[in-house]
Amino acid sequence: MSKNNDELFKNVIAHAKEYGFVFQSSEIYDGLSAVYDYGQYGAELKNNIKTYWWKAMVQLNENIVGIDSAIFMHPKIWEASGHVAGFNDPMIDNKDSKKRYRADQLLEDKIAKYEKDGKTAKAEALQTAMDDALKAEDFSRLKELIEEHEIADPVSGTRNWTEVRQFNLMFSTQFGAMAEGSDEVYLRPETAQGIFVNFLNVQKSGRMKIPFGIAQIGKAFRNEVIARQFILRMREFEQMEMQFFIKPGTEMEWFAHWKEARLKWHLALGTSTEKYRFHDHTKLAHYANAATDIEFEFPFGFKEVEGIHSRTDFDLSQHEKYSGKKLRFFDPQETDKEKQSYVPYVIETSIGLDRMFLLTLINAYEEQDLSEGDKKDSRVVLKFPPALAPIKATILPLTKKDGLPEKARDIMDKLKLDFNLQYDEKDSIGKRYRRQDAIGTPFCITVDHQTLEDNTVTIRERDTMIQERVNADDLEKIIGDLVSWKKVLA
Amino acid sequence: MSKNNDELFKNVIAHAKEYGFVFQSSEIYDGLSAVYDYGQYGAELKNNIKTYWWKAMVQLNENIVGIDSAIFMHPKIWEASGHVAGFNDPMIDNKDSKKRYRADQLLEDKIAKYEKDGKTAKAEALQTAMDDALKAEDFSRLKELIEEHEIADPVSGTRNWTEVRQFNLMFSTQFGAMAEGSDEVYLRPETAQGIFVNFLNVQKSGRMKIPFGIAQIGKAFRNEVIARQFILRMREFEQMEMQFFIKPGTEMEWFAHWKEARLKWHLALGTSTEKYRFHDHTKLAHYANAATDIEFEFPFGFKEVEGIHSRTDFDLSQHEKYSGKKLRFFDPQETDKEKQSYVPYVIETSIGLDRMFLLTLINAYEEQDLSEGDKKDSRVVLKFPPALAPIKATILPLTKKDGLPEKARDIMDKLKLDFNLQYDEKDSIGKRYRRQDAIGTPFCITVDHQTLEDNTVTIRERDTMIQERVNADDLEKIIGDLVSWKKVLA
Repeated sequence: MSKNNDELFKNVIAHAKEYGFVFQSSEIYDGLSAVYDYGQYGAELKNNIKTYWWKAMVQLNENIVGIDSAIFMHPKIWEASGHVAGFNDPMIDNKDSKKRYRADQLLEDKIAKYEKDGKTAKAEALQTAMDDALKAEDFSRLKELIEEHEIADPVSGTRNWTEVRQFNLMFSTQFGAMAEGSDEVYLRPETAQGIFVNFLNVQKSGRMKIPFGIAQIGKAFRNEVIARQFILRMREFEQMEMQFFIKPGTEMEWFAHWKEARLKWHLALGTSTEKYRFHDHTKLAHYANAATDIEFEFPFGFKEVEGIHSRTDFDLSQHEKYSGKKLRFFDPQETDKEKQSYVPYVIETSIGLDRMFLLTLINAYEEQDLSEGDKKDSRVVLKFPPALAPIKATILPLTKKDGLPEKARDIMDKLKLDFNLQYDEKDSIGKRYRRQDAIGTPFCITVDHQTLEDNTVTIRERDTMIQERVNADDLEKIIGDLVSWKKVLA
Repeated sequence: MSKNNDELFKNVIAHAKEYGFVFQSSEIYDGLSAVYDYGQYGAELKNNIKTYWWKAMVQLNENIVGIDSAIFMHPKIWEASGHVAGFNDPMIDNKDSKKRYRADQLLEDKIAKYEKDGKTAKAEALQTAMDDALKAEDFSRLKELIEEHEIADPVSGTRNWTEVRQFNLMFSTQFGAMAEGSDEVYLRPETAQGIFVNFLNVQKSGRMKIPFGIAQIGKAFRNEVIARQFILRMREFEQMEMQFFIKPGTEMEWFAHWKEARLKWHLALGTSTEKYRFHDHTKLAHYANAATDIEFEFPFGFKEVEGIHSRTDFDLSQHEKYSGKKLRFFDPQETDKEKQSYVPYVIETSIGLDRMFLLTLINAYEEQDLSEGDKKDSRVVLKFPPALAPIKATILPLTKKDGLPEKARDIMDKLKLDFNLQYDEKDSIGKRYRRQDAIGTPFCITVDHQTLEDNTVTIRERDTMIQERVNADDLEKIIGDLVSWKKVLA
């Protein structure tokens, strides 16, 4: 990350806190690592992103419905999905610093160091040795490599390491219903399985025909050991996932369809196409036969925001096996009787809501120098797409007297059922404009003495800062047109 | 519960499953006790209830903002709130059935039995003894009482009991960040504490002045041992809570205000006032100086849906004590310097989202006999308030040919950005109407041959079943007016 980008990112984080978008969780108790809370404007922005996704997925696609499954699920589900056996990281602790590290990350750092120092052969040898050890799940070999290459803890500086142990990333808790020792249940590490296990219920009760999709927004949890980059990787996060059930053999066509459709969803917000790229996976997960990431250029580089995966029939087949229930679709239109009943294939689109939030915030953030000659001036403005802006318009009486506040409130009362508004009468009008810029409000509506005479107000647009005089009765239409979901969905 | 009510409730539960409102969690794995998933119509209904609450609380109250704090919080918070020490039930296990019971509930059942059998003196004596034991937290005495009164396990029929033990209702899990043994964290048992610990962050970044409120919708978790009444009491549930921060001494006035405002919110949905009642608490929790429940008459009796509590400064004071941070409000307008800085008092409104969902479903559910003479007919209709209905309108081509489907889709395309619609062309028109009644769709729009000639359609209203012919171009306004949030919010 360049110095400028590093500074930009720090400024965005500070701004997010100062203006009520994101707070560290439990801050008055010195925080909880890798957990964040959304403040008063953050919660609105997050809700608007959810709405945008839900409308685009569910409302505009006749063959996609949305569900809301619980975080708690039967523990066998995570055996079937492979998470109990395979969702592990190899961890090692330093006995002096008491810090825990991912063993492979310590080795990766060392490899990078060798490369930087021109020791290419050493780097390659270590890479191969590490890959072999990981593949064989040979954890004592990983420890040996850490010792052989004299890797020290960056905190304590010592090489006083524990053994390497498998560490499952799922959080578990105990259901206390049974006397003979409680049942261990997990906090779901992904929302997708809540869709798979409800496949039949939704298909039957909704009379769905293939191809069809099930969408869901919800929390997921991973016991990440190393928290990174603000809200990019958290222990508690939110996903927006859609599983699209299709006929086997049609997956490449649907994979291409969803790649295009999902990128279009991102770009409809007005983000520059250069900020986005696809990263096609060459090394595929065991359940996938095609996969790509939609990556966004954050200040710290291109990172995955969304994944599109062709998951074959892996999940439904596993749940058939583990639950003993048939999870088939019966196609009466298929003339070949042998092919009438089948386990559907699945294309998944999975987007991290918190990442999308961070993307939106960073993309909107702009520090502007507004100085003219000797007159120094600047502002920070959040150029949110209007449909996503937390507050749509703010009503400002020019002064606190002469009946202007009363008139301003009259106007507000007429609009507040339609839009999320604010009212602000404190400080100079210039200061108030800046505060609204800083939270990304598209419109500032000022009520002045002329308003009392002819019912006109000034409306100031956030990005251009241009003010226009309009009739107060036209505000509903003017604001409505700009902040409308149709602008991004149509 | 009378036989009729019992049957009604069973029918509602069956209907909820059959029509995609609520599924048992992990059903293909034989379910997970006291956990449910919301299906395709349930998720929409739940979202609409959330929106109704959020708009009423946040959008329409200038001095209330909404946040979204994480489920994970610093463990000390639950010490401060009293949940670690006090959020317990006394449990006892039967060694034969392996079932676990709340000791006090076993005794309550016995007392009820004594009363039913006319053994009033015995009932009273046991009540007193139990109350004394609970007050003194004397668990061996509770066990003695169970033995003395020869209480047997209803499952095994034996009296082979374990000791009575304290059982904390919070779920706990381990954060794996630290090497020296992980930190125990809890899944929040209420969302309120996420508001209290963010009080200063929101007040400062939002420049809020007392009185002001912070609202939040989110999941909470309680390790309930006995699941009851469908989604009324679940281990994982969702709350909509608002904490209103006020000046000490004004709490009775604000308590009265919120009692009235919250009941009004319920009644604006059109529910009969007779279905609701207040239940004022006479026995108050240690932190409260006034409390009431808004109760709704479910088929199984009046039950709490929402609580309104005057919580004094208990929570903020406790967090001051445990965190060492000052949680005060500074009032520059107060002339008495000694009173300028204070810990605010709090009025809380706390509604169970799942209970509100159940209320809405039960209240909407109607079995109608539509027989005329010998012609038997009936329907189940969900008379949701239109703003809450999962699907706002369904477009139905009368037949699958003659260009009617194409015309129907044209009409749908014009409306689908505005409303959540369905399209249905399968089966007779009568059957299709019934399906929409069963999921509570306010409007069925039928496209017939006349539509091709003069662009008119029939629009059938759900409750009256009356059909009218209207111009297709007027549909946006007709539907929009009826399903508008303004109908319930204004």
